[in-house]
Amino acid sequence: MLVGRVVGNVWATQKDPTLEGLRMLLVQPLALGERASDEIIVAADPIGAGPGETVLVAFGRAARTVLGTQDAGWQVAVVAIVDDISVDEGVTIAGRESEP
Amino acid sequence: MLVGRVVGNVWATQKDPTLEGLRMLLVQPLALGERASDEIIVAADPIGAGPGETVLVAFGRAARTVLGTQDAGWQVAVVAIVDDISVDEGVTIAGRESEP
Amino acid sequence: MLVGRVVGNVWATQKDPTLEGLRMLLVQPLALGERASDEIIVAADPIGAGPGETVLVAFGRAARTVLGTQDAGWQVAVVAIVDDISVDEGVTIAGRESEP
Amino acid sequence: MLVGRVVGNVWATQKDPTLEGLRMLLVQPLALGERASDEIIVAADPIGAGPGETVLVAFGRAARTVLGTQDAGWQVAVVAIVDDISVDEGVTIAGRESEP
Amino acid sequence: MLVGRVVGNVWATQKDPTLEGLRMLLVQPLALGERASDEIIVAADPIGAGPGETVLVAFGRAARTVLGTQDAGWQVAVVAIVDDISVDEGVTIAGRESEP
Repeated sequence: MLVGRVVGNVWATQKDPTLEGLRMLLVQPLALGERASDEIIVAADPIGAGPGETVLVAFGRAARTVLGTQDAGWQVAVVAIVDDISVDEGVTIAGRESEP
Repeated sequence: MLVGRVVGNVWATQKDPTLEGLRMLLVQPLALGERASDEIIVAADPIGAGPGETVLVAFGRAARTVLGTQDAGWQVAVVAIVDDISVDEGVTIAGRESEP
Repeated sequence: MLVGRVVGNVWATQKDPTLEGLRMLLVQPLALGERASDEIIVAADPIGAGPGETVLVAFGRAARTVLGTQDAGWQVAVVAIVDDISVDEGVTIAGRESEP
Repeated sequence: MLVGRVVGNVWATQKDPTLEGLRMLLVQPLALGERASDEIIVAADPIGAGPGETVLVAFGRAARTVLGTQDAGWQVAVVAIVDDISVDEGVTIAGRESEP
Repeated sequence: MLVGRVVGNVWATQKDPTLEGLRMLLVQPLALGERASDEIIVAADPIGAGPGETVLVAFGRAARTVLGTQDAGWQVAVVAIVDDISVDEGVTIAGRESEP
């Protein structure tokens, strides 16, 4: 599982039929320290996350379980929208302001 | 899932019989920020992506579902050709010009 | 499997029903050498690890076995709380004081 | 799937019985740009690749399919010997001379 | 599969019952070039590797096959103790003296 921020969307017309009707989000994994991740994950979103929201992303069988079928050309999905993250003292997440 | 750019092709004569007839593309994952990824993914392409096109790539069972069999020596496949990517304000994808 | 330190928690209200009731921890993988990892893993915790504790984390089928079902939107779980780590002479783990 | 170069061999006497008789190659993944990868993959080779050859490597179920059984202590295998790689203009693979 | 060096041990009392009786090793993956990897893998060891030994490590179904059950909270295992590694001319493995 990873926790990341929704940073964009992808649109595709030519695609495997099992992708029909899925919202496809670009997600940037959160990182510890000062430097944000430069990785981009693409996740199907059955939950309805909006731009800038923080989400939990699952992979493989877990992702397909949430999407409702094991027989699809997908293996990554948003499984939750994160309300809050708390980190222990001395831990920083890149790009997030520390709370007072 | 990852989103990447088609940067080349691979040809092989000596191969497992289950690879017969598959187009094999080199795909460079898109990255956030200024620096393009130096990773190369090899993906079977049942959809027909051309050089320079942006594609969605799936792994494992998802890839084999799109290729039509779970009993093959492949676990990566192009599942869609991307028409458009939109990113939120302040987000940059390496090597792509930002839109005006 | 990886070994990591519990650095925080995640809360989510809008989520796949199969996530209901799971504790979700942020885990930072331990790294060799001087520099701590900047990666964040999210793991379901059926065991009860507290802040700052060192834990073993499993992925995929192994994680779901520990959580009691293969049909859930999760693929990462805490499978043990680590009592002690011993490293061979000359090996350092980032952020841990070497023992006298 | 990844594409890599055969850089060595591994020998082991004490091993799980399911590894008996397998050739085990060290493979360095190809990388884009100027800097070669420092990663080493170990792959079982049922095809017969020689030193310095470029190979396609598959993981997980795909690798075991090529090796002929799902009940073995292996999850990486050479599935093809690469004859030729072509890359689009402006793309460089580390350590390979560009063609004239 | 990866090849790595045993650099330590992990002990845990509070753990999933399926981990009972397993030796748990810390393994540092071998890397090409001058710089050793800072990654730590935790692997169950049914074979009996000692400190400093070089081992092959398998993941997922392959690891559980070697451990004798698919229904356990583990997905990484030592599958062989390496007797010898040979690398092609011009290839260096970090931290290993080149042979004369």
